[in-house]
Amino acid sequence: MGLLEDTIASITPPDSDAEKAAAAHLDSLTKPPGSLGRLEEIVRRYAAIRHDGSATMGRGAIAVFVADHGIADAGVSAFPKAVTLEMLRNIGAGGAAISVLARRFHYELIVTDDGVETDTSTTPFQGVAYRRAGTGTKNFLDQAAMLPEQARQSIETGIDVANYAATRGATIIGLGEMGIANSTSAAAILSAVTGVAPARIVGRGTGIDDAGLRRKIEVVEAGLRRHHEALNDGIAMLAAIGGFEIAAMAGVCLGGAAARVPVMIDGFIATAAAAAAMKIRPDLGAHLFFGHRSAEGGHSLVLEALGVRPLLDLDMRLGEGTGAALAMNIIESAIALFHQMATFASAGVSGKIE
Amino acid sequence: MGLLEDTIASITPPDSDAEKAAAAHLDSLTKPPGSLGRLEEIVRRYAAIRHDGSATMGRGAIAVFVADHGIADAGVSAFPKAVTLEMLRNIGAGGAAISVLARRFHYELIVTDDGVETDTSTTPFQGVAYRRAGTGTKNFLDQAAMLPEQARQSIETGIDVANYAATRGATIIGLGEMGIANSTSAAAILSAVTGVAPARIVGRGTGIDDAGLRRKIEVVEAGLRRHHEALNDGIAMLAAIGGFEIAAMAGVCLGGAAARVPVMIDGFIATAAAAAAMKIRPDLGAHLFFGHRSAEGGHSLVLEALGVRPLLDLDMRLGEGTGAALAMNIIESAIALFHQMATFASAGVSGKIE
Repeated sequence: MGLLEDTIASITPPDSDAEKAAAAHLDSLTKPPGSLGRLEEIVRRYAAIRHDGSATMGRGAIAVFVADHGIADAGVSAFPKAVTLEMLRNIGAGGAAISVLARRFHYELIVTDDGVETDTSTTPFQGVAYRRAGTGTKNFLDQAAMLPEQARQSIETGIDVANYAATRGATIIGLGEMGIANSTSAAAILSAVTGVAPARIVGRGTGIDDAGLRRKIEVVEAGLRRHHEALNDGIAMLAAIGGFEIAAMAGVCLGGAAARVPVMIDGFIATAAAAAAMKIRPDLGAHLFFGHRSAEGGHSLVLEALGVRPLLDLDMRLGEGTGAALAMNIIESAIALFHQMATFASAGVSGKIE
Repeated sequence: MGLLEDTIASITPPDSDAEKAAAAHLDSLTKPPGSLGRLEEIVRRYAAIRHDGSATMGRGAIAVFVADHGIADAGVSAFPKAVTLEMLRNIGAGGAAISVLARRFHYELIVTDDGVETDTSTTPFQGVAYRRAGTGTKNFLDQAAMLPEQARQSIETGIDVANYAATRGATIIGLGEMGIANSTSAAAILSAVTGVAPARIVGRGTGIDDAGLRRKIEVVEAGLRRHHEALNDGIAMLAAIGGFEIAAMAGVCLGGAAARVPVMIDGFIATAAAAAAMKIRPDLGAHLFFGHRSAEGGHSLVLEALGVRPLLDLDMRLGEGTGAALAMNIIESAIALFHQMATFASAGVSGKIE
């Protein structure tokens, strides 16, 4: 048994007693019962996942994983591969969108190089941890994107990050990523998991044109054909058509669930990681929140297929964890209401007419 | 000419040059063009409404108006009328949902008694301003809810509050309200403005049962029949079937537009105020943001009829400005990204493949 197996084995279901305790307190607050809508559902679920009826909230963390993709060589992205490294530096230095949001919401930003093509670990970027599984994945049209041991290593990197965040007091972890061409890998995973055809899932990523979109669909179709034998197993699927950062995010989902820390899924790419993690551990969805409906490709169809309703719907498609960060702030607002609102008794407010 | 006429006359359209300047800066930031979705739309609109291409953000304000409704005597609410006064005190004292959110987001909370049945102005509640237009409205089944001069007074109260907030540096104002039975008045206004039948608009408010819902629909239908001659004019409509707090919120919409301060509409009741204000000044929608899709009654149908898409959709139906506050925080995040993200040039990030 290794870290991965131990983690999977230690996941327990959310605590229904904690959920009931939270629900009872919600009904005592000065508002019509249920009138805070999904904010009440959030608090109940948060309490259950944390096994904590008082829904204590610590600091949030955002875990961003960055890696390169061999499939970029198939011409599926509007931006050059060099942007992955440039954005790794930008995220760590505080200039990327997720850097701004993490600062604004006081979230700990944990940035990990999982395998960018160029290795900068000997002259490391500010604010970046190096846990490299390789120098980018291979082109999955030719061979598996990574070796099985690289898939395991990347998942365990994610588990380590989840445990690190939990140890430092994080009570929720948001997922983020950056990697040129990773929407191609994610589309392949999401098509494999949901059975929705690539043509209905593949999107324009950072902004490819019509010809590029057609090529990208063909690439995903070809990848799924080539690796069809690997698609029924979560880890094998990640090795065949995944990315180091996608596997790491799947690891955070597993590690967060084991540590009783809810994980906030970002958009299209992070949903692929969550879908892969749910393939590895089918009851994992009970430990996750889905932050937003991305404007990328068939994200709506995918969410429907997974049976989840995201918190936000703002036509965002940037990734990096930006949608997760905004949604985590909604959760913090829900918890603040839960803790700070007066009760009918304490405020002397009359109840319903019987 | 009075304050109302002067205010209406001084409204000018949003500034398209400021919008273009904001759009140009958005495209220089380290993200695929347009990938922040509605956050980018928000920044462009905010810049245009403020006539400020650099989209400077000051403090937010939440203006909550509280009043009683004569129509409560028709048995349309699940809670007794006394709750209006009790919640006025609770909001001012910091225990209501909007008190918690305003504190959390550092918004100035401006609470106004516009005409609660019981007059507490001689022993005033903490944190409450008294601008009372009466001791609650009349039952609109028997007579007009208020006199024309009360409607004007209430609207001008809202204009004054908008100007007060703007003078103190607010660059966005959220609307909130509390008033037992005000969802009945709001449903009547929204049906009158949109032409959607009362049966499709009326909701359960604070939680009436099926019989109560049928009665509430009949009450709205009867009110619209009785006052049909007043429904083509915004001010006359507010006097006939409105509420003091609804008229005041309509005043904030007008006053905010004149002061170039965007106004964030909350849910069902605040939308009725916005709809009345748009009846008074048809181009007013360009100055408003709609915060969220309420779970109350036919709010979705109303938003569709008004041609607006709200920012959030969290099944909330509490009012008080709670949805507006959450949505204002999304706007602040969008503005923070606009101001703090690195540009492609400053971060040395490569552009799109040409």
